[in-house]
Amino acid sequence: MLNVAIVGASGYTGLELIRILYCHPEVAVTCLTSEQSAGKRVSDVFPTLRGRCDLVLENLEPVRVAEKADVIFTALPHKAAMEVVPTFLKLGKTVIDLSADYRLSDPEVYGAWYEKHLNPANLKKAVYGLPEIRRTKIKGARLVANPGCYPTSIILGLAPLLKKGLIDPHSIIADSASGTSGAGRSAKVDGLYCEVNEGFKAYGVGGAHRHTPEIEQELSLLAGAGLKITFTPHLVPMDRGILSTIYATPTKVATTEKLVALYEEFYSGEPFVRVLPQGSLPSTAFVRGSNFCDIAPLVDGRTGRIIVVSAIDNLVKGASGQAVQNMNLACGFPETLGLDGLALFP
Amino acid sequence: MLNVAIVGASGYTGLELIRILYCHPEVAVTCLTSEQSAGKRVSDVFPTLRGRCDLVLENLEPVRVAEKADVIFTALPHKAAMEVVPTFLKLGKTVIDLSADYRLSDPEVYGAWYEKHLNPANLKKAVYGLPEIRRTKIKGARLVANPGCYPTSIILGLAPLLKKGLIDPHSIIADSASGTSGAGRSAKVDGLYCEVNEGFKAYGVGGAHRHTPEIEQELSLLAGAGLKITFTPHLVPMDRGILSTIYATPTKVATTEKLVALYEEFYSGEPFVRVLPQGSLPSTAFVRGSNFCDIAPLVDGRTGRIIVVSAIDNLVKGASGQAVQNMNLACGFPETLGLDGLALFP
Amino acid sequence: MLNVAIVGASGYTGLELIRILYCHPEVAVTCLTSEQSAGKRVSDVFPTLRGRCDLVLENLEPVRVAEKADVIFTALPHKAAMEVVPTFLKLGKTVIDLSADYRLSDPEVYGAWYEKHLNPANLKKAVYGLPEIRRTKIKGARLVANPGCYPTSIILGLAPLLKKGLIDPHSIIADSASGTSGAGRSAKVDGLYCEVNEGFKAYGVGGAHRHTPEIEQELSLLAGAGLKITFTPHLVPMDRGILSTIYATPTKVATTEKLVALYEEFYSGEPFVRVLPQGSLPSTAFVRGSNFCDIAPLVDGRTGRIIVVSAIDNLVKGASGQAVQNMNLACGFPETLGLDGLALFP
Amino acid sequence: MLNVAIVGASGYTGLELIRILYCHPEVAVTCLTSEQSAGKRVSDVFPTLRGRCDLVLENLEPVRVAEKADVIFTALPHKAAMEVVPTFLKLGKTVIDLSADYRLSDPEVYGAWYEKHLNPANLKKAVYGLPEIRRTKIKGARLVANPGCYPTSIILGLAPLLKKGLIDPHSIIADSASGTSGAGRSAKVDGLYCEVNEGFKAYGVGGAHRHTPEIEQELSLLAGAGLKITFTPHLVPMDRGILSTIYATPTKVATTEKLVALYEEFYSGEPFVRVLPQGSLPSTAFVRGSNFCDIAPLVDGRTGRIIVVSAIDNLVKGASGQAVQNMNLACGFPETLGLDGLALFP
Repeated sequence: MLNVAIVGASGYTGLELIRILYCHPEVAVTCLTSEQSAGKRVSDVFPTLRGRCDLVLENLEPVRVAEKADVIFTALPHKAAMEVVPTFLKLGKTVIDLSADYRLSDPEVYGAWYEKHLNPANLKKAVYGLPEIRRTKIKGARLVANPGCYPTSIILGLAPLLKKGLIDPHSIIADSASGTSGAGRSAKVDGLYCEVNEGFKAYGVGGAHRHTPEIEQELSLLAGAGLKITFTPHLVPMDRGILSTIYATPTKVATTEKLVALYEEFYSGEPFVRVLPQGSLPSTAFVRGSNFCDIAPLVDGRTGRIIVVSAIDNLVKGASGQAVQNMNLACGFPETLGLDGLALFP
Repeated sequence: MLNVAIVGASGYTGLELIRILYCHPEVAVTCLTSEQSAGKRVSDVFPTLRGRCDLVLENLEPVRVAEKADVIFTALPHKAAMEVVPTFLKLGKTVIDLSADYRLSDPEVYGAWYEKHLNPANLKKAVYGLPEIRRTKIKGARLVANPGCYPTSIILGLAPLLKKGLIDPHSIIADSASGTSGAGRSAKVDGLYCEVNEGFKAYGVGGAHRHTPEIEQELSLLAGAGLKITFTPHLVPMDRGILSTIYATPTKVATTEKLVALYEEFYSGEPFVRVLPQGSLPSTAFVRGSNFCDIAPLVDGRTGRIIVVSAIDNLVKGASGQAVQNMNLACGFPETLGLDGLALFP
Repeated sequence: MLNVAIVGASGYTGLELIRILYCHPEVAVTCLTSEQSAGKRVSDVFPTLRGRCDLVLENLEPVRVAEKADVIFTALPHKAAMEVVPTFLKLGKTVIDLSADYRLSDPEVYGAWYEKHLNPANLKKAVYGLPEIRRTKIKGARLVANPGCYPTSIILGLAPLLKKGLIDPHSIIADSASGTSGAGRSAKVDGLYCEVNEGFKAYGVGGAHRHTPEIEQELSLLAGAGLKITFTPHLVPMDRGILSTIYATPTKVATTEKLVALYEEFYSGEPFVRVLPQGSLPSTAFVRGSNFCDIAPLVDGRTGRIIVVSAIDNLVKGASGQAVQNMNLACGFPETLGLDGLALFP
Repeated sequence: MLNVAIVGASGYTGLELIRILYCHPEVAVTCLTSEQSAGKRVSDVFPTLRGRCDLVLENLEPVRVAEKADVIFTALPHKAAMEVVPTFLKLGKTVIDLSADYRLSDPEVYGAWYEKHLNPANLKKAVYGLPEIRRTKIKGARLVANPGCYPTSIILGLAPLLKKGLIDPHSIIADSASGTSGAGRSAKVDGLYCEVNEGFKAYGVGGAHRHTPEIEQELSLLAGAGLKITFTPHLVPMDRGILSTIYATPTKVATTEKLVALYEEFYSGEPFVRVLPQGSLPSTAFVRGSNFCDIAPLVDGRTGRIIVVSAIDNLVKGASGQAVQNMNLACGFPETLGLDGLALFP
């Protein structure tokens, strides 16, 4: 049994890690931390866990955490993660970091979008944890930078096209919409039920969202050349799910049939990517609670544009599920262990 | 007092017409029809009306309807509208048609997207009822083709740019999302609460939605040349509202500041269009139940693209509210009469 | 035109007052206060108001407020209200207080459920503002204590039975459920969308909710003798609405038919109470945004118990709509002025 | 491996059975039937299953079904179940019936609430499948009548009190609220998103709901004497979950502390019942997707009444989860096999 700690366990991604790992046959969760709720039982914060996981939440003392665990998931805000990750690494632990701190390989870019990076040394060691495009490097990695939720949906949606050079890399527009859990669990008027319910809105329009450089970094690598995208996130009155509708101009005439075939080949053997047959479209409802990414590529016959629609659960494939997938790869377990659960519908 | 009939009063747009007209000081609703529920009181179908509007729903017999009303709102499915509108016109009535039947000026286009048009003669007399761009013609019109919900949000969003030639007309991508009332009130598994709730999805992707030719017709007129767009509708788990996020390539370098100034000028004096100040973005929650269209134009500084976000209530500015606005114009009432109500929030 | 101030205008009841009064023909809103958002335009806090009500929110300085208004709505938390109401009264203003501060006639009871009452002198002058049972006293009143939302639904539901002595006053169980706007607009984890959505729960079970003494006070007056009730509030994942399902043991055998007749007679002529015909049941959806209280009384044939189901919009008949109704009565306007709007459905 | 068939697999309980059994280590789902969708792949009806369970839905031919399976779950409407169950039993199969057909031991009662019973012979062999009160009989049973969702929540809520004679059996009022999935997956206007969303209502008030006799049968057995209850179901705008708030008059003075102790003892060792500590209350959100029943008993100090609040997921402990629990017991597997999943929150 592998002993695992979750640092930052009183947020939604922390809870989702506990939920998934509870059914993982090779893992024991031995330590949970929370600054806000230290001293409480995690099942008092999240009554779903009552009787199944009643650990007491601890203050985050890195050395003590490291004593209790072999693998540490850091589910902290940015900056807070890079304040403790170096210690965990020094103590020989494997870290799956769910924050943004190790996703951007260039500390200058990090500095431009967040603040000065505190730990550029480890940036180079970090592996961007999107298994479908970086599986080999994740195996055995000591520090995995778990991708953002929007980036996961957009990169998986575009990877086959960019790899094959089938679209103009400067033509990409990604229009995404997320459930509310993506905004986290801190008390804000903006996040109140009555403020969110029965409303749909865009935010961070015009390239203001911090996932933008992460998406561009990975798409540029796939394209083999720098590119910039237009990315617009929206907020949906629902708990979970991200749907990305992505537009691009093809470099030569395309057909839906060929696109579907290309995607099926590209993702053949992938346990968590489902390429939908022509005529089907994804919905966040069909991946809720599961680690799947459903993708439908197609051609708009009237304008010739390529459109790709992809759906994930932002807390699973977009965060904690992918983190467990990365842990499985990093630690040598079968990649799908603990991630077999089907989506909850309705 | 003007006597008004609503033909097709047991759907959501019919109900919304009743709700709005109930507070209109110059109108009396004298006749309601419904094929499904004829013989029932409308307040048994919609208990919101109990004690305020208890008319009995009648079968649709055009001559009898025309005897009772000066103005007739046809809130019928396409085809059903053009089967009765000619009779109403012959009998000297004013018709505000909420169906698609008189929106497309070219019967060939109608035929390609719907079916053979039954009443091309009246097509020419019909005025497309978007007051902000066709006000003069609507005044005194005898047949107003009330615009579709998606088209309203997209055309109002793009009119200033196309009129001024500020965008490449072939670069337009309109990514829209609608509340569920847009799908109507007929019994379908797809529309069940559990099928819609907690899910976000695209539909009609790739130019399949029937509002596409309507949008293109009006945008082409504004641009002064034919154009095609990519239009993707999405379904949001909420009752009301449409948000359109629209992308286009500018013909010359633009700034958000200038765009906002342009829109403010273009829509200055418009009672129902609110151009938001730089930095603000619309939400469907802020127009729910009202006849407003909120618009924010801006420039994506990273890619240079122009993005316009617009929000309406699909049942008000996107249907019944706009229909009353058109009636006011057609009948010589002040344009805002009965439409003063502020949005219901939360 | 009557000049009106709303003290505490950045909460949901404050906004709802603005929405309703905007369509009131005899009233001008001249002053809005908010401690949190003073200095901002109210339309920046609530974008629904943009272009229609753009007043700047002020700090609460009672004398300055009184200079600007004849009638003052206090939409403040308890205690904050009684800190300013005496000043308003001294300056000759009419006050409609939406807080709990003047609802309980006995300051001891107030002390037991809230804290020491600061202004017992005015308690005696306050009129409990439920027009259906206290209309005469409200006419011309200078201080109206606007009822709580749960109490409104329960008292209107039981008044006919208690007045006629038809139920055992000690047998009453009121099981109520409220939309989330009842919890107000302050930032709390408990109120976040993800915490509320897709969950239904009871709270304050066992007589812990502060509306309990208010309900008991009024029911006791109707019954002509002291009584205690079991009252259980629940939280529903929706914005607005309260439904109360109320159980009582009849003093003699009852039939649904007779109950409906009794209720129809008791509420005959009431503009905002709708007694539903036998076989119909209320839904909060049918009163949303309106000032109606829909009521269905019936007998459970198997156990003989009487069940009354009542529905209101907690922000309208349960707060701001009723406050305007009270203002109309207090100021001599027609009782329904500004309150004609039909419910918004869907 | 046990081969299992699900008869009626295109409804929500059918899908939930597939979801749960997919993770059950001792079971293979080998046959699915659906009258509506025969010939389609189940993953075309429910895209959540794509790539994991792609069986083709068959017509219901009992003998062919029986050839493919050892255990058969019948997730059919009432009447349809008893038309096929006798064949399955004759062919030596074990049946877990999720319909109402074998829950009422007295065919006269069934006749009064449904229609003439077609298979009274097997009624006697059927075991009411509530493991917490009937575990011994379920072990090895050939026909298990899986309880209704409301009955499960109410019977588990009251069992300790009735067994110990602590409440007046004629005083019981059960006020329950259910998510919308309880209404099934057939196309009805009543079930549309816009009809359900943002509304809360009671239905079947006054003893009209067909779960009433089932609840009374089981409560009477626990009490050792016939009793009648007042049962009011409500509809909540959410997908899943039932919360029951149950009221009863104690036979002697009770305290919350003692009640909690009693419940803890009564349910000690039960894997799926969680008695909450004093001060905690259940929410349907905390059991969503799990097989738990959370219960909080307490005393209303002001009136002396006992109140019990219980929460389940109507599709899991209220239907398919409990069915798998019953299968485990009937077939000799560990009772919790396949049912370890924690609730999905948010």
